[in-house]
Amino acid sequence: MNIETRKSHRCFDGEVLFQSHKSPTTGTDMNLSVFLPKEKPKALMVWLSGLTCTEENFMAKAGAFQFASRQGVAIICPDTSPRGTDLPGEHDDWDFGSGAGFYLDATANPWAQNYKMYSYIVDDISQFIAASNLDHLPRCISGHSMGGHGALTIGLKHPEMFQSISAFAPIVNPMEVPWGQKAFRNYLGDHEESWKAYDACQLVKSSKYNGEILIDQGLADNFLTEQLQPEAFEKACSATAVSLQVRRQKGYDHSYFFVSSFIDDHLSFHLRQLKLT
Amino acid sequence: MNIETRKSHRCFDGEVLFQSHKSPTTGTDMNLSVFLPKEKPKALMVWLSGLTCTEENFMAKAGAFQFASRQGVAIICPDTSPRGTDLPGEHDDWDFGSGAGFYLDATANPWAQNYKMYSYIVDDISQFIAASNLDHLPRCISGHSMGGHGALTIGLKHPEMFQSISAFAPIVNPMEVPWGQKAFRNYLGDHEESWKAYDACQLVKSSKYNGEILIDQGLADNFLTEQLQPEAFEKACSATAVSLQVRRQKGYDHSYFFVSSFIDDHLSFHLRQLKLT
Repeated sequence: MNIETRKSHRCFDGEVLFQSHKSPTTGTDMNLSVFLPKEKPKALMVWLSGLTCTEENFMAKAGAFQFASRQGVAIICPDTSPRGTDLPGEHDDWDFGSGAGFYLDATANPWAQNYKMYSYIVDDISQFIAASNLDHLPRCISGHSMGGHGALTIGLKHPEMFQSISAFAPIVNPMEVPWGQKAFRNYLGDHEESWKAYDACQLVKSSKYNGEILIDQGLADNFLTEQLQPEAFEKACSATAVSLQVRRQKGYDHSYFFVSSFIDDHLSFHLRQLKLT
Repeated sequence: MNIETRKSHRCFDGEVLFQSHKSPTTGTDMNLSVFLPKEKPKALMVWLSGLTCTEENFMAKAGAFQFASRQGVAIICPDTSPRGTDLPGEHDDWDFGSGAGFYLDATANPWAQNYKMYSYIVDDISQFIAASNLDHLPRCISGHSMGGHGALTIGLKHPEMFQSISAFAPIVNPMEVPWGQKAFRNYLGDHEESWKAYDACQLVKSSKYNGEILIDQGLADNFLTEQLQPEAFEKACSATAVSLQVRRQKGYDHSYFFVSSFIDDHLSFHLRQLKLT
């Protein structure tokens, strides 16, 4: 894999890299960002961002690097969709199309050719990790909102890839809420059975993931009642071996001010699950 | 003063507020942002941002709130220029006009009526601080780049307002560098004697400020040689009672990745100077 570094910035004696590579999966150039701590990393977190985000938001706003640099956590943030395809309607809605890939492999046209963000994370990001000489590291996954959905679904499907899962204000049950239904109908078609492959409440029933999951959810989050509904995932997990902790944070909304307030807790959680502290 | 709160976000159990008020000084509505720590603040920092910034950049990117909330530091970030005037040429250049008020009182037309950011900080922000019931707090000032210029010049002129001064990659000698010369010629006219009132290297000669000044400067900063030249300020301070520490940070550039890496150090420095630690 040929990786181009577009920009780099020193931060807390580590390095923030903005990189690009050609993706055989999406058929496009893909952007992503990487944080490398000041000394050799001992763990790697893949962070999946939410609707409208690019590979930049977490890097600029999450405030994770003081802790990550000290503790030796490398971080990779993929973009949230392919770019540059200009498919019909791709840029019309903020919650569908560009910036809203939903971490699934589209099967409906015109999306099926490029919108393969599930395979992009599982295949291309794995190759990217290897090409970056980070594939020896224990790995965790986290994300925010649509990216929390991505972290839960990909983490639950691939415990061989990710040994620890967390999420901030995730879409836990996309089949049953407007954001997910809109995305699934357009990307996957009307056959709802096919939607189950991308719904954390469904996937947890048969997942081989045997660790804990940490979720933080702000109680002043405008999307809590209609789109997020963490109680649905609590109910789904209760019938399984997965141990879920949902922390309901009073007064916090859906923004990166919320994510930044608790990102150190999530990194600590992952280091404990990876048995590195 | 009538203050409108446009948005608020909980962060580290404190609050980030995006507010507006009518400014008699600029003749416009002015935006600014405020961070209030979780418990009663014991100090107040005024942060002045750089070229192209608004009141949002520091709040979103500096990563200051974990430390500020724990240590009880309130923070006020004004915008960097008046908005909404649409003067001829105001939006043509990124380093002049909107987003580039240079913390001076313009005397040349068409800028003289609205571009009064020096008086805005000294008068209106003082009134804003009083209206926000924060005027009992010891106060420090800091900023980045053009905002570092603002922090140095306003701090040196007003030791009765600010008991501690620091800056990140400041423009220390605007009379002698392209950014400053362009701004001063357009805002103040060709009479260079009038420029001295806004040049830190000039002001330090007669300042009654008797504290220390901390400056962090990245050595990989693209603007270091042409626009910033911290050695000019070191030379100017050496003939005065002002004690200046310039820390040259290897590998760091001009971005908020640099600011975020050292903002806790600056807050600590201010708390020591304010005799609060």
